[in-house]
Amino acid sequence: MSKLKTLRGIIAYPITPFDAEEKVDIHLFKKLTDRLVTSGSHAIAPLGSTGVLPYLNDQEKEAVVEATVEVVAGRVPIVAGVSNLTTERTIYHARFAETAGAAAVMIIPMSYWKLTDDEIFAHYRKVAEAISIPIMAYNNPATGGIDMSPALLKRLLEIPNVTMIKESTGDVQRMHYLRRVLGEEVAFFNGSNPLALAAFSAGAVGWCTAAPNLIPELNHRLYDAILANDLAGAREVFDAQSELLTFITANGLPRTIAAGLQIQGIESGLLRSPLAPLGAGDYLKLKSLLGEVG
Amino acid sequence: MSKLKTLRGIIAYPITPFDAEEKVDIHLFKKLTDRLVTSGSHAIAPLGSTGVLPYLNDQEKEAVVEATVEVVAGRVPIVAGVSNLTTERTIYHARFAETAGAAAVMIIPMSYWKLTDDEIFAHYRKVAEAISIPIMAYNNPATGGIDMSPALLKRLLEIPNVTMIKESTGDVQRMHYLRRVLGEEVAFFNGSNPLALAAFSAGAVGWCTAAPNLIPELNHRLYDAILANDLAGAREVFDAQSELLTFITANGLPRTIAAGLQIQGIESGLLRSPLAPLGAGDYLKLKSLLGEVG
Amino acid sequence: MSKLKTLRGIIAYPITPFDAEEKVDIHLFKKLTDRLVTSGSHAIAPLGSTGVLPYLNDQEKEAVVEATVEVVAGRVPIVAGVSNLTTERTIYHARFAETAGAAAVMIIPMSYWKLTDDEIFAHYRKVAEAISIPIMAYNNPATGGIDMSPALLKRLLEIPNVTMIKESTGDVQRMHYLRRVLGEEVAFFNGSNPLALAAFSAGAVGWCTAAPNLIPELNHRLYDAILANDLAGAREVFDAQSELLTFITANGLPRTIAAGLQIQGIESGLLRSPLAPLGAGDYLKLKSLLGEVG
Amino acid sequence: MSKLKTLRGIIAYPITPFDAEEKVDIHLFKKLTDRLVTSGSHAIAPLGSTGVLPYLNDQEKEAVVEATVEVVAGRVPIVAGVSNLTTERTIYHARFAETAGAAAVMIIPMSYWKLTDDEIFAHYRKVAEAISIPIMAYNNPATGGIDMSPALLKRLLEIPNVTMIKESTGDVQRMHYLRRVLGEEVAFFNGSNPLALAAFSAGAVGWCTAAPNLIPELNHRLYDAILANDLAGAREVFDAQSELLTFITANGLPRTIAAGLQIQGIESGLLRSPLAPLGAGDYLKLKSLLGEVG
Repeated sequence: MSKLKTLRGIIAYPITPFDAEEKVDIHLFKKLTDRLVTSGSHAIAPLGSTGVLPYLNDQEKEAVVEATVEVVAGRVPIVAGVSNLTTERTIYHARFAETAGAAAVMIIPMSYWKLTDDEIFAHYRKVAEAISIPIMAYNNPATGGIDMSPALLKRLLEIPNVTMIKESTGDVQRMHYLRRVLGEEVAFFNGSNPLALAAFSAGAVGWCTAAPNLIPELNHRLYDAILANDLAGAREVFDAQSELLTFITANGLPRTIAAGLQIQGIESGLLRSPLAPLGAGDYLKLKSLLGEVG
Repeated sequence: MSKLKTLRGIIAYPITPFDAEEKVDIHLFKKLTDRLVTSGSHAIAPLGSTGVLPYLNDQEKEAVVEATVEVVAGRVPIVAGVSNLTTERTIYHARFAETAGAAAVMIIPMSYWKLTDDEIFAHYRKVAEAISIPIMAYNNPATGGIDMSPALLKRLLEIPNVTMIKESTGDVQRMHYLRRVLGEEVAFFNGSNPLALAAFSAGAVGWCTAAPNLIPELNHRLYDAILANDLAGAREVFDAQSELLTFITANGLPRTIAAGLQIQGIESGLLRSPLAPLGAGDYLKLKSLLGEVG
Repeated sequence: MSKLKTLRGIIAYPITPFDAEEKVDIHLFKKLTDRLVTSGSHAIAPLGSTGVLPYLNDQEKEAVVEATVEVVAGRVPIVAGVSNLTTERTIYHARFAETAGAAAVMIIPMSYWKLTDDEIFAHYRKVAEAISIPIMAYNNPATGGIDMSPALLKRLLEIPNVTMIKESTGDVQRMHYLRRVLGEEVAFFNGSNPLALAAFSAGAVGWCTAAPNLIPELNHRLYDAILANDLAGAREVFDAQSELLTFITANGLPRTIAAGLQIQGIESGLLRSPLAPLGAGDYLKLKSLLGEVG
Repeated sequence: MSKLKTLRGIIAYPITPFDAEEKVDIHLFKKLTDRLVTSGSHAIAPLGSTGVLPYLNDQEKEAVVEATVEVVAGRVPIVAGVSNLTTERTIYHARFAETAGAAAVMIIPMSYWKLTDDEIFAHYRKVAEAISIPIMAYNNPATGGIDMSPALLKRLLEIPNVTMIKESTGDVQRMHYLRRVLGEEVAFFNGSNPLALAAFSAGAVGWCTAAPNLIPELNHRLYDAILANDLAGAREVFDAQSELLTFITANGLPRTIAAGLQIQGIESGLLRSPLAPLGAGDYLKLKSLLGEVG
């Protein structure tokens, strides 16, 4: 796990583009992912929410992981999303990712029926035992439907290869709590774009974000200011991007990233139904926001 | 759609039982579904939340629909759950259900990324155009992750074969609103067990419920009292079952129905991970509740 | 407490009208209260939320209670609101109401700082010990800021003269729970207008409402249908008033009752700042709703 | 308003202590307030939530304001709480505070009936026109019952002497929004203890807090680190106090500050009913927390 011990910084999430028949466009995916590497991302995380993981079938997920490994080509670590409603399928995809060359997997406990804490713990434990790479436990009630309590997150860390926590509840108090309870040994990542400054202030070691698809320089300047212990500088560069971060998060990352790329003249493919392109009014708003930061 | 014009009453939801390898146990499923028909259910609804639809793969879903058609054998109508994250898969399963012999399909707009109203409308419209049987639009933010506003539900009813609404928000005011706005022509079904009396009082024509797996007689006596315009009688029989209804809903229907059947001496199979059996304390509580109503 | 044993039916809430200097207009208050008695109310409840209790000073509260006793003149029981942030003031007003001739007092545990269950219990106990008339414990988190759990309500009923519960959370499940746990000996009243039918269906013995200021006949016809065990009739008369009930509740009872009276040609006085009259658009909406039911 | 232009830093909130008869203990109040000045507070804010403003009658409020002016004796500015349900009483107390010598008043729009935005705006405007000192508009839905939107806060700033905003929603995104929309000319204060670091990171100029009653040195060291642009240092000193800050906020400031002073050997008086002292278990927890930071 040595590579992951030092995982920190900007973890970038590529979108999964589709062609006119709503099939995954692997060729375009690789181009978009390569941009994320060359613009300085510290890691690449395919098949996150941004990559519409739950909308893909098994074969498509495998193709995306393989394409990521191929295009990243060892330049930075890969953290592959392998979440699934059933434990059996989660294990299957986690094993696939490890074999393909991912450095770690990210798992959110997806819910249809609300899971008990014991069910969630057993889910992580069984997956963890089936692989030998680290797991980033991901908490995001807004998409996954379950809010893992800090106490449960702490319990998950008893599983040897659960070594990272990604928090996207947008609750700053919880970030402070996690740091206080989990200590400095556990890497705590922030997944809420509008809280990037608050999370770094609270001690997050990394930011899991789709924003580098659109504004990598601003994202990295924020991280650099934090590393330099320059709060005033961090606040200034965050204020320059916060309205855009709030917009892309509030309007859905697959939609807004695809639209933003298009606005910047970069081919971004189509979405898979029922997801539809950003509406005309929001498109203009995004164009204006990108113009301001550009 | 003639058969559906008269759909009302107790719409019963079978569980999907699994064997020791966590494979769907079709043989047992048919036995459990037959019980629901013989105990008087007015319709059978396989692949609902109770039937853990989202935890099954395509082949398993098809096998469950076919088994339902076979065992029901025309005795009552079948309302098959065909919800899926993508529009393409929803169409696929809706067509399968129609061909297999279902009288209607039930669709909840499943969400990972929150869908806009336009996306939801287009989703239903595309599915509706692909089949010729009626659709029951199902609203349940607790499992589906989206709360369709009354205004959106009204808009969905513009689609010719969306003819039924199933509401599970547990909001009685909304039920009154729906009846007021949608009028008497649209069949409004209640999917919230603890609100069964309130929903019938508000004018619901049917109750979508897993409770007939355990207490069919009490469920039917409630409906009969409503048909007889006997509010005092309805209240009495509802009071006799309300604590049990609240319990099975609050603790997860797949878990509690499986446990309740076992308590009653009926084989109910296993659950698929990560779902785990009801804990020991809750099992005893359920046993006590079933003893009281038995 | 014999008079209260039989308290049930329509408990009507008068508004407190103000003159041009924003002083309480006692003369007008008596006229408006008399209307509620002559239109058939089973009890009168001055100084409720509708009567803007918290916006009045001590002298004004006393004048309103005395005026109510005078104008009601023993025709029906009076349930006086005496809620206050401090226990000392609550006791003061409860004693005043008893001496003046009220049959019971209504108390909501007002909150600025969230009170613990023990603090709430002690508050009720101290007030109860200071008077000999019954107390209606009133739960309404939307105005009072505290949601008393069913367990706490049950505990309050251990206090001898806490004999009535008024629930305004709008949670039908809680109504069923209260009836189940508290039994038939405790009178359970509904304070949520839009849930009047659901509450009566669940077994409420009375409806605490400001609606009789505007539509007493419809309110009483609903109650009569319930008494006659005629659910279909109750539903029909409820459907005729439910949109109006929802409107007056959603837009603030002091504002909407005052406007509604004015629309009906009845002098209703002014409001006390910061409360302002209903806006023009809402006024027209209310006029249209009153025209439909008129 | 020159004095206020430079208001920033630690705004300290004294408690209002009561004697054995639950009367305000003015002598003790002055001793406790003097401690806050001598420990370095940049301003004193009597009659806040911590000072149980709504539980006091008019005479008591006036006595507290006069006592504050007397004991502070011009050493730092005074920001007096004058919030009241009615506009008339708010104006009365605002004028009293100005005449007595307060540098500014703090106003939260207290709610029983939910106020419309127009009602809230008119409330502030009328009070503002009646005084010539600045107003700090205070947003705290948890105590006041109303959540003023950023748009409404922006509108309030059109009133000439509304020059400061105190935000206690605990929503970091809103803090960023306020700074972005309101610009640097408006002083934005944080009233949420557990978010002190996040708020300063977001650009808050001051922290409105009762914590200096117990841990003034830690509070000031946090502010000093922020002034020195030392994020790492700020995080370290915040982490040392965050659990205590969360505890006193979650358990009610009047209770916890009184208990904390007692633990530190400082006389803190009694509370006014229904507020009761901190329970035994929480008292021990607080003792342990204070021991850790001591």
